Amino acid sequence: MAQKPPACTLKPECVQQLLVCSQEAKKSAYCPYSHFPVGAALLTQEGRIFKGRVSLCRPDWKCSGTSLAHCSLKPLSSSDPPVLASQVAGTTGCNIENACYPLGICAERTAIQKAVSEGYKDFRAIAIASDMQDDFISPCGACRQVMREFGTNWPVYMTKPDGTFIVMTVQELLPSSFGPEDLQKTQ
Amino acid sequence: MAQKPPACTLKPECVQQLLVCSQEAKKSAYCPYSHFPVGAALLTQEGRIFKGRVSLCRPDWKCSGTSLAHCSLKPLSSSDPPVLASQVAGTTGCNIENACYPLGICAERTAIQKAVSEGYKDFRAIAIASDMQDDFISPCGACRQVMREFGTNWPVYMTKPDGTFIVMTVQELLPSSFGPEDLQKTQ
Amino acid sequence: MAQKPPACTLKPECVQQLLVCSQEAKKSAYCPYSHFPVGAALLTQEGRIFKGRVSLCRPDWKCSGTSLAHCSLKPLSSSDPPVLASQVAGTTGCNIENACYPLGICAERTAIQKAVSEGYKDFRAIAIASDMQDDFISPCGACRQVMREFGTNWPVYMTKPDGTFIVMTVQELLPSSFGPEDLQKTQ
Amino acid sequence: MAQKPPACTLKPECVQQLLVCSQEAKKSAYCPYSHFPVGAALLTQEGRIFKGRVSLCRPDWKCSGTSLAHCSLKPLSSSDPPVLASQVAGTTGCNIENACYPLGICAERTAIQKAVSEGYKDFRAIAIASDMQDDFISPCGACRQVMREFGTNWPVYMTKPDGTFIVMTVQELLPSSFGPEDLQKTQ
Ligand SMILES: [Zn+2]
Ligand SMILES: [Zn+2]
Ligand SMILES: [Zn+2]
Ligand SMILES: [Zn+2]
Repeated sequence: MAQKPPACTLKPECVQQLLVCSQEAKKSAYCPYSHFPVGAALLTQEGRIFKGRVSLCRPDWKCSGTSLAHCSLKPLSSSDPPVLASQVAGTTGCNIENACYPLGICAERTAIQKAVSEGYKDFRAIAIASDMQDDFISPCGACRQVMREFGTNWPVYMTKPDGTFIVMTVQELLPSSFGPEDLQKTQ
Repeated sequence: MAQKPPACTLKPECVQQLLVCSQEAKKSAYCPYSHFPVGAALLTQEGRIFKGRVSLCRPDWKCSGTSLAHCSLKPLSSSDPPVLASQVAGTTGCNIENACYPLGICAERTAIQKAVSEGYKDFRAIAIASDMQDDFISPCGACRQVMREFGTNWPVYMTKPDGTFIVMTVQELLPSSFGPEDLQKTQ
Repeated sequence: MAQKPPACTLKPECVQQLLVCSQEAKKSAYCPYSHFPVGAALLTQEGRIFKGRVSLCRPDWKCSGTSLAHCSLKPLSSSDPPVLASQVAGTTGCNIENACYPLGICAERTAIQKAVSEGYKDFRAIAIASDMQDDFISPCGACRQVMREFGTNWPVYMTKPDGTFIVMTVQELLPSSFGPEDLQKTQ
Repeated sequence: MAQKPPACTLKPECVQQLLVCSQEAKKSAYCPYSHFPVGAALLTQEGRIFKGRVSLCRPDWKCSGTSLAHCSLKPLSSSDPPVLASQVAGTTGCNIENACYPLGICAERTAIQKAVSEGYKDFRAIAIASDMQDDFISPCGACRQVMREFGTNWPVYMTKPDGTFIVMTVQELLPSSFGPEDLQKTQ
């Protein structure tokens, strides 16, 4: 069975913007035990990344004079009307630890749970940032499973502080995965 | 050792508003496996409840013509200036399940993780809502532990759909708890 | 509504034996991140504590010449036949951490999960041990919830390395808890 | 960088024995909420699978008259002495759910946590069994991460009730993984 191409290949300038958001999100990390802050920025199908109630799409981050909403699946023609802020959404997240270690949560899951709790379940891309200088930060298996609940064919940008990154789909990060449809198979 | 009184006793109209927010949050629950939706609304020290980027403090929910910001620790005199929306924040959450059940998350933790990821760690109260008609919904042990990471002396409103509730502090819900200071005790 | 007395009050020498087992279990802790080893020993209704396939009920731990099986709910008369080893079971556990902190597990849950996976779901008592010299180690909220799945009215012995302890029931540690019966209440 | 071959390719008759153990373990599943029982059998480097204190290596499961201990990395010559039962160990596990779904645990993690709590951290193989007739049961992301804590180069047998299976290494199931060594990289 042929593997579909990733649902969305973001334009370089949009990826860069998503990365900046994930690095920004890292600043909120509550990690007094690991001292290993992680940030994540999640882009929904609607097109923008919000940090809670404040849009992170600051003017100085915009790509070539267009808004992040232009990082769409089908390139907008110049005659397309601008996407309104009210139509778009996304979230950022950070790791939040607990004195009882197993009760902490990762940045990626925080971002996804925020989005779902605000009504968004269609994801276009996620970027992850850490302080590791020489390695790309990759999601843990638990986060991959939570990503997979909402689709297998969307890209995960694993970054370094210098802005370089590698990208893999959820499917590539969690091959032969167990998912929602499997639960029905014994009934 | 005497138990301190709860840091904050909310005024009845403010509690009611918090409850409405938790019921509203329940609508975003992703619970295809349990079919048991839960919502939570978290009030930060700054004074308002936001659902992501949109304030839930809609005009029709305001308490007696005052804003929720008036649900403060120290009653505001009538001559106090109104608290500006930009000074206040809070979040709501819902349960978000996973085909692999252990990877789901509760409404209360979603709300707390959202708040922390947006820079808020001082909590004044949380309300929880479910569809159980005859019982007050109470937080699971994991959520109590996550609440406790950010303080033991704040109230948890456990509600019914009809708006009635019981209230206990985190300390009462998780007595003799293990917490951040314990981790240092063997070092 | 009157609170039932704990289903089981263990005899002092039996508690001491349970404590020794929890301290022994602590030696297997895999805690390279917290450096905070914890052990737990779980006593099933059948009466003994096993560490996996090896009984921990070593001759030098026996209480006053009787086996731990005599730590029964109803004191055995001297004419009662001795309980055979093959009739009894229990488990020990330790904390097992993960580089991704939220994927670790506590000692108490390890012990309970071991017991259930071996067919035992009726618990009589659990003891917890840590290296904290000046404080009794208490279970996290998540562990209290997992204990509660299998009953609210059984004792948790929270110990210090010197063998002193405090004891509370699961019900006392997790008051007003959410449990198995609640899940049915909306259906 | 070349990928090492799996540390251990088990002989077919040994795989079959591991499968039988995982199917047996499934019978202890506590899954009143999902009704989706899963079992797992973990083989340690020492060579046998134990179900708690009772060896699962029953006479009728032995492969061609040899013990499972012969499923060794380097084929034993006929003149090798048989490995003694006392030198070998392993565990089985099942899923154990909770009314608060996120507090459940999977079969694979139960088996691994049992083994670690009994002093075994070198794993040779794990087999997973479910009731899905038409699909191979695969581990969730959280379990893959817990497997990965103890090595990336060991095989996971994903089975069907009819005894057929597919096998992948932990590395293949969790590519580009985050692991113990990464935590040190920012310090
Ligand atoms: Zn993660
Ligand atoms: Zn909870
Ligand atoms: Zn715990
Ligand atoms: Zn799993």
